Amino acid sequence: MASINDWRPLAAPDTVVRLDEKFAAIDEQWTPKIIAQINDLHLKAVKIQGEFVWHVHDETDEFFLVRSGSMTIQMKGLPDAKLGPNDAFVVPMGVEHRPVAKDECEVLLLEPAGLINTGDAPSGDLTAANDDWI
Amino acid sequence: MASINDWRPLAAPDTVVRLDEKFAAIDEQWTPKIIAQINDLHLKAVKIQGEFVWHVHDETDEFFLVRSGSMTIQMKGLPDAKLGPNDAFVVPMGVEHRPVAKDECEVLLLEPAGLINTGDAPSGDLTAANDDWI
Repeated sequence: MASINDWRPLAAPDTVVRLDEKFAAIDEQWTPKIIAQINDLHLKAVKIQGEFVWHVHDETDEFFLVRSGSMTIQMKGLPDAKLGPNDAFVVPMGVEHRPVAKDECEVLLLEPAGLINTGDAPSGDLTAANDDWI
Repeated sequence: MASINDWRPLAAPDTVVRLDEKFAAIDEQWTPKIIAQINDLHLKAVKIQGEFVWHVHDETDEFFLVRSGSMTIQMKGLPDAKLGPNDAFVVPMGVEHRPVAKDECEVLLLEPAGLINTGDAPSGDLTAANDDWI
């Protein structure tokens, strides 16, 4: 029987995406790893700690779902979004924002394939590869 | 300060989407409820138990993430995908499939806004509204 990888290689690196295994395999912070593709979107797993750079995505919303830990999404002109485990948030396109986490926080992101994590901000130490699967 | 609901009413029914509260408020099975919008996609929460109808979505992938319980996604021509808590799966567009759960299973779905849950199958008891927010 064909495996799903034969059928559509980019849909998922393996048949079932086990989040526990994916997060266990991530040993860096601020480096989103692609774990699934849904149409033209990538679902990514990332561990964050500290303050990210202020940036904006003018062409897309960005979805956050906290798996463990807690984080705050600071936004220009909107109240902070404070997220704990099982809390989700959509940063609307065009809203300048900055994720912040005091302690390490595990997060799922959903965004268009190819998106640059630092958006319009100048490329820097926090700018990650946008095509790394795990 | 403006709330995010003033800013973009369809992005989310409240500022932070608390999955624990959303699932606690669902008292039916097989009725996906929209909990967030990301671009033209809806994130939905659903409780399932039993066998769904075989159907196909020719125009879109469909993303499943199990929050609690277990389920099997049966597919024509592909091995079953067996999912437990924190397991995700992408049913590629065009693949006929049927979700099955022996006991109640809580699932997050991601799919284009307006998608009919029973796809190409004749409309029936399992065909749910596609615009219900919770």
